[in-house]
Amino acid sequence: MSERYDLAIIGSGPAGLSAALNAKIRKKKFIIFGTNELSAKLTKAEKINNYLGFYGKSGAEIRDEFVKHLDFMDISIKEEKINNIYAMGDYFALMVNEKMYEATSIILATGVNFGKPFKGEEEFLGKGVGYCATCDAPLYKDKVVTIIAYNKHEEAEVNFLSTIASKVYYLPMYKEKVDVNESVEIIKDIPLEIIGDKKVNKLILKNSEIETDGIFILRDSVAPGQLVPGLKMDGSHIEVDKKMKTNLKGCFAAGDIVGVPYQYIKAAGEGNIAALSAVSYIDEVSKK
Amino acid sequence: MSERYDLAIIGSGPAGLSAALNAKIRKKKFIIFGTNELSAKLTKAEKINNYLGFYGKSGAEIRDEFVKHLDFMDISIKEEKINNIYAMGDYFALMVNEKMYEATSIILATGVNFGKPFKGEEEFLGKGVGYCATCDAPLYKDKVVTIIAYNKHEEAEVNFLSTIASKVYYLPMYKEKVDVNESVEIIKDIPLEIIGDKKVNKLILKNSEIETDGIFILRDSVAPGQLVPGLKMDGSHIEVDKKMKTNLKGCFAAGDIVGVPYQYIKAAGEGNIAALSAVSYIDEVSKK
Repeated sequence: MSERYDLAIIGSGPAGLSAALNAKIRKKKFIIFGTNELSAKLTKAEKINNYLGFYGKSGAEIRDEFVKHLDFMDISIKEEKINNIYAMGDYFALMVNEKMYEATSIILATGVNFGKPFKGEEEFLGKGVGYCATCDAPLYKDKVVTIIAYNKHEEAEVNFLSTIASKVYYLPMYKEKVDVNESVEIIKDIPLEIIGDKKVNKLILKNSEIETDGIFILRDSVAPGQLVPGLKMDGSHIEVDKKMKTNLKGCFAAGDIVGVPYQYIKAAGEGNIAALSAVSYIDEVSKK
Repeated sequence: MSERYDLAIIGSGPAGLSAALNAKIRKKKFIIFGTNELSAKLTKAEKINNYLGFYGKSGAEIRDEFVKHLDFMDISIKEEKINNIYAMGDYFALMVNEKMYEATSIILATGVNFGKPFKGEEEFLGKGVGYCATCDAPLYKDKVVTIIAYNKHEEAEVNFLSTIASKVYYLPMYKEKVDVNESVEIIKDIPLEIIGDKKVNKLILKNSEIETDGIFILRDSVAPGQLVPGLKMDGSHIEVDKKMKTNLKGCFAAGDIVGVPYQYIKAAGEGNIAALSAVSYIDEVSKK
């Protein structure tokens, strides 16, 4: 059996980090998933003057202050990507490729970087379209697979799939140098539409097309409705109340993902509220 | 005629300051009322570890960072106390003793330091109980007045009243040395109840009582429902929506005053939201 955390925080932007500080101070057993870069959006910000207390600093400089704060509090970030989260009643099951984590409560703070789905993506989800290459790899033994990835970290998944599939087409959507197995065919083009019959059979690109049995789309974050089945949305945002509670018992959310304005200190403030709400929930549940 | 501000921010704690940064960045003509100490609550905080980006610092040290941020942005705080705010339709009138300010929109960020009213206080408000000694002084010419004050700054009001009233009793509720005119009778006791008939006639203290025609209660901040007549409350907090809008058009609120948790970064996040909502409101109104 997996060990059970009191709280799992998904996302390492200002909302997730602020939540982590409070979970630590309140002495809860928690885990925070994200990247050691913390937030790509923050890191790329040129100058931030409206985060009270910091002025004239770039996003990267503020990120460095956040890193120091985490170090001071002895908080480290688990660099793993959650593929799915299931509400199991009195706990949540967090699926990370071949592993599973359990937590009594969760805070979703994944930001809004999930982008617009491609045409046909939602229609063929589970019918050849997937978000976790490692999870679904066995389905594509000796078949043709296409991978669209938004982060160089995904190259490990590409290499792994290339040992199973008969052919892997790879569309890197990032700027860094691509470094994958020789057998992988790298394609520099823009995906437009996924088409098929009962299952996916083709990916239409701007300048060409690919016949394929499966398509994996590896974005930095998964849309929340796909991440947590049953989660109530308000348009493209998660619906929360003032306490940052979602419609699922024990599930809280904070930051850009719960709505505009997309601002760092707003996100950090909400992370604080979400953590204190989660702490109350954990304390209440543990009394039963 | 007074000059008209786009925005008046009332309160210089984290919510008010965060709002001011955004008003400045958005190039609005604004004024922020408060004290150069910024926030007594913040200044007295021993150690704050859950304001993302600052760690191991005392409240006073974080206050100093906020002061540097204000200086960098060329924002200064107006050290005046607002006694009443009236919604005039397309603007707000802010009463400061003998002066008046006008603003198209306001953000209330006064915190929750207003304390519980004394027994009888609300019943006799306007019938001998008042919050602005300077404003109402003419009513007490040659009468007996009692002043209960929570801040040494109020001594100027006490001295002013002593030149008009026949007798001034003074109950200082602060620890600093009291320094008022000789004619003022200083009483060290604890106020319990205000009683009277149609008007105030007595203040009951823990160890004695005072016969008086009027009682001024000078707290660091005024309860929001008294500050802004017509404002919709939710218990002791101002009712706001996600955009930090109150029930009064053009009036926004942020920080402790809109509800728990009472946390610095939550307040700063809300100040950011309130300012951006006020900016939208100002832009919309100015188009008409």
